[in-house]
Amino acid sequence: MKRLASYVTGKWVEGDGSQRPLHNPTTEQAIAETSTSGIDFAAALSYARDRGGPALREMTFARRGELLRNLAKLIHSKRNELIELAIDNGGNTRSDAKFDIDGASATLAAHADLAEQLGDRKLLIDGDVIQVGRTARLAGQHIIAPRTGVAVHINAFNFPAWGLAEKAATALLAGMPVVSKPATATALVTHELVRAIVAENILPDGALSLVCGGAGDMLDHLGGQDVLAFTGSSITAATLRATAGVVSRSVHINVEADSLNAAVLAPDVSLTSETGQLFLRDVVRDMTQKAGQKCTAIRRVFVPESVAGEVAEALAEELATIGVGDPRADGVRVGPVATADQLRDVRAGIERLVGATEPVYGGDGGDVELIGVDGKGYFVGPVLRKTTAPRDAAAVHEHEVFGPVATLCVYSGDAGEAAELVQLGGGGLVASVYSDEREFYADIIPPLASYHGRIYMGSEKVAAQSPGPGTVLATLTHGGPGRAGGGEELGGTRGMAFYQQRTALQGDKGIIKRLFD
Amino acid sequence: MKRLASYVTGKWVEGDGSQRPLHNPTTEQAIAETSTSGIDFAAALSYARDRGGPALREMTFARRGELLRNLAKLIHSKRNELIELAIDNGGNTRSDAKFDIDGASATLAAHADLAEQLGDRKLLIDGDVIQVGRTARLAGQHIIAPRTGVAVHINAFNFPAWGLAEKAATALLAGMPVVSKPATATALVTHELVRAIVAENILPDGALSLVCGGAGDMLDHLGGQDVLAFTGSSITAATLRATAGVVSRSVHINVEADSLNAAVLAPDVSLTSETGQLFLRDVVRDMTQKAGQKCTAIRRVFVPESVAGEVAEALAEELATIGVGDPRADGVRVGPVATADQLRDVRAGIERLVGATEPVYGGDGGDVELIGVDGKGYFVGPVLRKTTAPRDAAAVHEHEVFGPVATLCVYSGDAGEAAELVQLGGGGLVASVYSDEREFYADIIPPLASYHGRIYMGSEKVAAQSPGPGTVLATLTHGGPGRAGGGEELGGTRGMAFYQQRTALQGDKGIIKRLFD
Repeated sequence: MKRLASYVTGKWVEGDGSQRPLHNPTTEQAIAETSTSGIDFAAALSYARDRGGPALREMTFARRGELLRNLAKLIHSKRNELIELAIDNGGNTRSDAKFDIDGASATLAAHADLAEQLGDRKLLIDGDVIQVGRTARLAGQHIIAPRTGVAVHINAFNFPAWGLAEKAATALLAGMPVVSKPATATALVTHELVRAIVAENILPDGALSLVCGGAGDMLDHLGGQDVLAFTGSSITAATLRATAGVVSRSVHINVEADSLNAAVLAPDVSLTSETGQLFLRDVVRDMTQKAGQKCTAIRRVFVPESVAGEVAEALAEELATIGVGDPRADGVRVGPVATADQLRDVRAGIERLVGATEPVYGGDGGDVELIGVDGKGYFVGPVLRKTTAPRDAAAVHEHEVFGPVATLCVYSGDAGEAAELVQLGGGGLVASVYSDEREFYADIIPPLASYHGRIYMGSEKVAAQSPGPGTVLATLTHGGPGRAGGGEELGGTRGMAFYQQRTALQGDKGIIKRLFD
Repeated sequence: MKRLASYVTGKWVEGDGSQRPLHNPTTEQAIAETSTSGIDFAAALSYARDRGGPALREMTFARRGELLRNLAKLIHSKRNELIELAIDNGGNTRSDAKFDIDGASATLAAHADLAEQLGDRKLLIDGDVIQVGRTARLAGQHIIAPRTGVAVHINAFNFPAWGLAEKAATALLAGMPVVSKPATATALVTHELVRAIVAENILPDGALSLVCGGAGDMLDHLGGQDVLAFTGSSITAATLRATAGVVSRSVHINVEADSLNAAVLAPDVSLTSETGQLFLRDVVRDMTQKAGQKCTAIRRVFVPESVAGEVAEALAEELATIGVGDPRADGVRVGPVATADQLRDVRAGIERLVGATEPVYGGDGGDVELIGVDGKGYFVGPVLRKTTAPRDAAAVHEHEVFGPVATLCVYSGDAGEAAELVQLGGGGLVASVYSDEREFYADIIPPLASYHGRIYMGSEKVAAQSPGPGTVLATLTHGGPGRAGGGEELGGTRGMAFYQQRTALQGDKGIIKRLFD
């Protein structure tokens, strides 16, 4: 069986002792194994800090951007191999796999573009020189410098390529070396990607390390100049936050966790309009793409009472056309979920929803006819539920079901009421609103904004080119408060702030102005 | 004895059960008592969220600024009463008390000025509208909205007025209601200040609450839209960070903790020059002002070998002129430290330093001649130590002695070496550098920047108007990484970010542009 290694301290290291298997979720066969037992994590972090950090900090933003451009090109050149691995190890359809892999290269390329704009500098200037004394002579100027530690990235199983790329692009551009730990279950894609990066010698020594398997005692070795970025469940996030080093050494931590993303259909929208069609398309895409395993996927669909029946019918009709089964089989749009554990979780989540809502489509997700599969695989079919009393259906708002599952929530059509119901999710990554009326947006956006990192506005004018709310863009922030983890990534230089220290300079205006000439 | 109450749920509430005493640190007499036992903290937080929050969010920035302006004026009008209380309860000299109280009104006034600039809006726009689709029609725009929870502020004993004011100014301007908890030991000033605010009815109902005494189970009731800002020891900070609600509900937490602030004298500076005199003045001020109880005070003084003897002599000479004793007595510049516990901590800290360094001035701080005192009070005299091997003197870099204590650290005169030695402090609030050479600044600022929230540049041109590194300015950020807590406050709108959620809007450019017209 293929054995994966970790890339630390500038070399590939296989863990000893018992190995953890990686499966093909379609066939349930083990297709690789890995272990990190015996790896010296303290040394791994030191190597990144001492080798990768100085090398990156010596470079200008423009130069770091060239590295990112090369990474983007490399991923694109390895696209087909990576897609095959994503199908095997992730249960992705070909289209799902492209979404992850092309997302990775696009994010790297976007950061390479940003690097060009930042240019031949090593530090960022933040704002203007201001007067802080009795005269203009005594001045203040904020600057932004990279932290001198290591960025540890713990990624989720659903985006083995994009997850590594988006976090690494931001950190490397900011000037921090990265130790990336993909979820073990779907690490094959990440492993191959890093193998290619190392083989092509694209990055300076120590700038990117890979941990394939458990994190061991790695987090105990984090210090005050290090950062930890995590994408995954809120339960794991809570454990990471309480780690001794994080608590006592003020390690900055960024979390993207559970999110019950809402879509709100405004009462002005007819289902047959461009906006209405966009809404239906977005909901179905988010329910089915990657078998619903997107942190940004729509989970709660708020529809005005007047069109609730029509929406349910239209969605059910569309969902009925979607094939579920072997991602390599013709006509399949929904492959298996990634692991046996995920299947268990999704089934348990559906059960909770069944107890709190009415059926619309798909029963409990278990009775779907599978294509190209004979009794094996972690499959669950699309499930759409409905509630006419969303205020009383706690399960709908509080428990993320990470599969092809969503719930229609009927509301009056009032923007304020919709916002209050959406807020029951306790904070999310993205909310989407479908309307062609400025007033509806003006009413609903302020109360939604406090609870979300992104608000997607679906309207007629953008229907033809909109990627849907589930697609994270490098130029807009990604993250959300509360249940969603309280993190913020991407958004151009905004996401870089996590990897940087802002410092106020206070002194003679003449010296400050000439400081980095 | 005077009994303090807390102001929660719109009324003054005395705690029942056993009371905690507040002392006069000069006489050791108990002068007031307080308790929070029996206070319903869940109700206190809800009241702030449900009453204060909506009232503030309804206001424009300009209107919130008017409130802050009124607060600043009120504090100024109560200046003399507050000064008297600060002398009695804080052991402040008159000058120390003014520093705190005038700092409070200045910070509020600065935020009122900022509010005028932000104007008649309720939300902030962050950056430009950018293209995020195939055409410019699909646009992105970041906006910034207040969080809808409550801001809990836990302040340190050393700045009972300024501590409340700087945190509250930022939160209220951002649109969040505040529950402020001063350190119990010196709460008399804060209590009087809030009493006056409530009596004058300056703020909307629920916008400002006061907890005088223990925090009880307050933090267990924090949720995903709430924030917690803390100033105090890194040990308490670690406890707060590990609180269940903070860990599991992604409560944003901002910490200002221990900081071994460094002053670096560059080799180009002669002690008799303007810059040299500024340096000496700043070190002595930071050692003695508020008996050294400033989180920004210089603790480590890096001096080139060539002038180390001269610096030691000059500082010792100046320190010898400084009277220690009853803050009301003539000729006293250093009063007692705030509490018996602080005295114990400072003495223990000095003992550590004595084991690791050579004496320059003040022995162990215990044999100082006290003015106007007869055997009572929590006094410690200024102590200056010295090491010629700073790399080996861990105690100097790792343990903040929160009293009139500093250590001279001899270095070669090389900027890179100085930066490395400063970094041994593990991250600080402010570093100060004294030089008139651009090159020295250009070499030392990048490595210092990653480790500090502020860098103060002392040079000839600003010597006449410089407030010293220990004075925090509302327009420049305050906070530091690692040991200093990893927080960021003030700095204009920068400090407001903690109380706000940034949200990316994504949609039709036309709708976005007209959204808040």
